[in-house]
Amino acid sequence: MVNALPPGGARAVARCDELGVAPYSDLPDSLYRGYLTPAHRTAIDRLGAWMVEAGMQVRIDPAANLIGRYEGLVPDAPALVIGSHIDSVRDGGKYDGPLGVMLGIEAVAALQGRRLPFAIEVIAFGDEEGSRFPAAMLTSRAVAGTLDAAALDMVDAQGISVADALAEIGLDVGDYLTAARKPGTTLAYLEAHIEQGPLLEAEGLAVGTVTGIAAQLRYEITVTGTAGHAGTTSMPLRRDALAGAAKMILAVETIARAAASDLVATVGRIEASPGAANVIPGSVTFTLDVRSGDAARRDEAAEEIFEAIRAIAGNEASPSTLFSREGGSPGVPAIPFVTPGPPPSRGNGSFAGDGGVASRNLDLTTILIHDLPASPCDPALMDLMDAATAAAGHPVRRLVSGAGHDAMVMAALCPTAMLFIRCRGGISHNPTEHVDPADADIALRVMSGFIDRLGASLDPA
Amino acid sequence: MVNALPPGGARAVARCDELGVAPYSDLPDSLYRGYLTPAHRTAIDRLGAWMVEAGMQVRIDPAANLIGRYEGLVPDAPALVIGSHIDSVRDGGKYDGPLGVMLGIEAVAALQGRRLPFAIEVIAFGDEEGSRFPAAMLTSRAVAGTLDAAALDMVDAQGISVADALAEIGLDVGDYLTAARKPGTTLAYLEAHIEQGPLLEAEGLAVGTVTGIAAQLRYEITVTGTAGHAGTTSMPLRRDALAGAAKMILAVETIARAAASDLVATVGRIEASPGAANVIPGSVTFTLDVRSGDAARRDEAAEEIFEAIRAIAGNEASPSTLFSREGGSPGVPAIPFVTPGPPPSRGNGSFAGDGGVASRNLDLTTILIHDLPASPCDPALMDLMDAATAAAGHPVRRLVSGAGHDAMVMAALCPTAMLFIRCRGGISHNPTEHVDPADADIALRVMSGFIDRLGASLDPA
Repeated sequence: MVNALPPGGARAVARCDELGVAPYSDLPDSLYRGYLTPAHRTAIDRLGAWMVEAGMQVRIDPAANLIGRYEGLVPDAPALVIGSHIDSVRDGGKYDGPLGVMLGIEAVAALQGRRLPFAIEVIAFGDEEGSRFPAAMLTSRAVAGTLDAAALDMVDAQGISVADALAEIGLDVGDYLTAARKPGTTLAYLEAHIEQGPLLEAEGLAVGTVTGIAAQLRYEITVTGTAGHAGTTSMPLRRDALAGAAKMILAVETIARAAASDLVATVGRIEASPGAANVIPGSVTFTLDVRSGDAARRDEAAEEIFEAIRAIAGNEASPSTLFSREGGSPGVPAIPFVTPGPPPSRGNGSFAGDGGVASRNLDLTTILIHDLPASPCDPALMDLMDAATAAAGHPVRRLVSGAGHDAMVMAALCPTAMLFIRCRGGISHNPTEHVDPADADIALRVMSGFIDRLGASLDPA
Repeated sequence: MVNALPPGGARAVARCDELGVAPYSDLPDSLYRGYLTPAHRTAIDRLGAWMVEAGMQVRIDPAANLIGRYEGLVPDAPALVIGSHIDSVRDGGKYDGPLGVMLGIEAVAALQGRRLPFAIEVIAFGDEEGSRFPAAMLTSRAVAGTLDAAALDMVDAQGISVADALAEIGLDVGDYLTAARKPGTTLAYLEAHIEQGPLLEAEGLAVGTVTGIAAQLRYEITVTGTAGHAGTTSMPLRRDALAGAAKMILAVETIARAAASDLVATVGRIEASPGAANVIPGSVTFTLDVRSGDAARRDEAAEEIFEAIRAIAGNEASPSTLFSREGGSPGVPAIPFVTPGPPPSRGNGSFAGDGGVASRNLDLTTILIHDLPASPCDPALMDLMDAATAAAGHPVRRLVSGAGHDAMVMAALCPTAMLFIRCRGGISHNPTEHVDPADADIALRVMSGFIDRLGASLDPA
C-alpha cells in the first residue's frame, strides 16, 4: 500500500496530529486518551496498521501495550526497544508520548528491510501519565517487571477496576505481570520525547541527548505564626507566617539559582490561613520540589534550603518535624521506587535577620511527599547519540530530564537512552503543545544514526 | 430592685458574659448575635432593663438601636452619646462591642442621680459588624445621618430583606433614616472598646486614649509570569510569579517596619495559579492592606510599596493597571465614604536585582478595593481622656485604632473620643476573646473622670 503522507519525521508529526482528535480522543473537543478507553483501543488499531506497514509483526501484551517487532539478522535476537506512551492527560497535547512511538515506527520503516545484529521492537505504552487510574507508568512497570500486583487493585473515577477495564478488551488482569520481558531479550531501550522544557528552544537546538531523569524530592512545609487583626497588630508584635514563608520561597530560588547547574527548585502551591485581607496569616503551607540529574547535588541543595528555612523561622525552641507521608496521597502514585529522603539538618542560617526582623519565631512542620532517585542514561549509549547528532550536522547538547518518563522505569531492565526534541515555548500538557516537523526529521536522522552505530558497536567487523 | 451583681467595671464584664450565650446568641454552642435576629431582640430587652435600673429612659429608634437617656441639669440638653454595638460576628467574642455599652450604663449608674450640664444617652447600635446583611455600620450611619437609603435594599443569606427583618420587630423601613439625630442635640460621642490588638498588653497598660481610626487602603495585586514544568524549566528561564510575589511581600513588610510608626501593612490572602507542586506558578494574586492614623503617612507608604513592587516586577514595557473596583464586592460594603485612592507612581526600585534575578519581567495588575480616610478623634476630648487616665493613677498612652468602629461614622455628626481597653493576646472575633474585670473597672473610672471633666469644661464656674 502506498501511503500519501509525507515521509519520515514530518509523517510522524502528521500521524500524531491524526491521533489528536476523535475517535482517537475520548473527548469530542479536546485530546484525552485514557488507558484502556475506547480512544486507546482505536489508537492501538491505527498504530498497529502503521507498524505492519513499516514491516513489523504486531502483538498486544497482557498490559495492553502495543508492540511491533522487526526481526534482526538472526531470529529471536535481543531487541532494541524503542518506545513511549500513547495515553495523554486531559486537554493534553498531541506529541507528549505519541511522537516517540511514531518516530520508532519511522526508524524501522527507514531501514527499508535492512537487518541488524539485533531486533527492534517498537512499544506503545498504554499508561505513563496515570491517565485513568491513580498511579502512573503502570504499563512500563509491567514490562520492566517492577510492578507490584497490589498496584492493580485500583478503580478509576467511575469506579471501574483495572480488571474490568482490561476485560473489555479481552485481557485478563491475572496475566498482567506476565508482560514482564524475559531476561536476555532486551538489548537496550531508546525513547524520543518532546523536551517539555524551554532549554533547547532557548539555545536554538532541535535535539539533545538526555543524561538521565532527575532525582526528585518533594516536601510539604507548614509555617505557623500567629493570626492577628491586620489593622490593630503593630509590625513589631507580629508573627506573620506569610512574610516568613515569602522569605523562605526567595531562599529556595536563590539557592537553586546559585547552583548554576541542572538543579531546579520550585514552590508551586501555597495556601495562607485564614486567608482574609484583614487578617495576618497565622499559618502558611507550601510545597517544595527539588530536582537534579545528580542525586547528591539535589540532596545538598535540599540541605541548604532547609538550613535557610530553619534560620528564617528562627525558632530554635521548636524544632521542625520531618515525617514521610504514609502510602502516598491521591496525587502521588505509591510507586515502588520511593525511598526515605535525607533528614534535613539544622544549621546556622545566613538567611535570617533582614528587614529588621531579628527572629521571626515561627514554627515549622515538614512532610516528605516523595523521594525519587535519579535514573541515569547509559554513558555508552549517550556517546552513540552524541555521535549520531554530530554526524547529522547538529550541535551536541546533553541535558537532564526534569520530568519522569517510561525510560526511568525501563532502566531497571536494560541500559537506556533518550533523545529530547525541541517543543515550542517548552509547553506540554496543553493543546498548544507544538513540534516543528523539521525538528522531528532531525530526531529521526539522529535515531537512525544511533541504531546504525549500535549495530556497528555489536558487530565491529 | 437590688442587683446581686458586682458593681462597676466587673459588673459590665459579667453582663457581657451573660449576653454571650443563648437566648442572647442565635447559636446554641457559640456566640452569634445578628442584627434584627431573635438574639438581638432578647438582648435589647435585657439591656433596656439595665438602662432603666441605672436611671435612664429607654427607647428603640427606627434603626432598632436601643437608646437610654439620662437627662442633664436642664431638660432637652444636648447629649454626650456613649455607645458601641451589640451585634457580633459568627463564633465571636463577648466583649467586642457590648463592653462599651455596658460601661456606658455603668457610667450613668455611677452618677447616682447627679446631673450634669449635658444629658447622657447610651446607645446600643444594632449593626456594626455587618453581622447579617452585606454592609457594615448600618445603624450608626442611620444615626449620623450619612446612610444612603439605597443601602437598605439588601437581603441576608436567607433572602430576607432589611424591611422584612425590621417589620418582625414592629419597625418600618420607611422610617429608617429618621433615626438621624437632629442638629444641636449631640454634644460628643464616646466609645469604649477592647483594643483588638496586642499593644496595651505588650506595654502592661489597662487603657489607652485613641487618637483616631486609621486611614485604610486595600488593593488586590496580580503578578503574572509564565507557568512551566517544575522539572524541565531551568532556573534562568523562569518567570516565576510566586518568587516575584514573595519578594513583593517582603518589601511590604520591610517598608512597614521601617516606618517605625503606627503604620501597618499586611498581605493576608494569596493564591498561586495553577497551584500544583510540579508547576511553576504562572500567576499569583494577593491582597495588600495599608493603614495609619495619618492618611499622608499611609499614602507615602503605599507609594513606596508600589514603587518597590514595580521594581521587583521589573517589566517597564508592561505598565501596571490600576483601577477601582466598581460598586464594591460582597465582602466590601459600598460605604459612602469610599474615595479614589492615590495612583501609585512609578519609581526606581531599590528592591530589584537580588538573588541573581536581574529582571523578573513580570506583569502587574492592581485593583483598588477601598480607600477609607482617617477619622481623627477630637484633640480636646483626647486631652480630657488623658487627664482622666492620669487622675485615675494610670500611665497615659495614645494609640491609633487600626480597626473601624462606630466612632468613625459618628465623627460626621460630632466630636468623638475613644478609650481602648486591654484584651488578652490582642484576640477578638474569637470565643477566646477576654477582658480582665479589673481593666474594665479602670476604664469605668477613666470614663467617669472624662464625663466630669467634660462637664467642668462646659461649666467653668
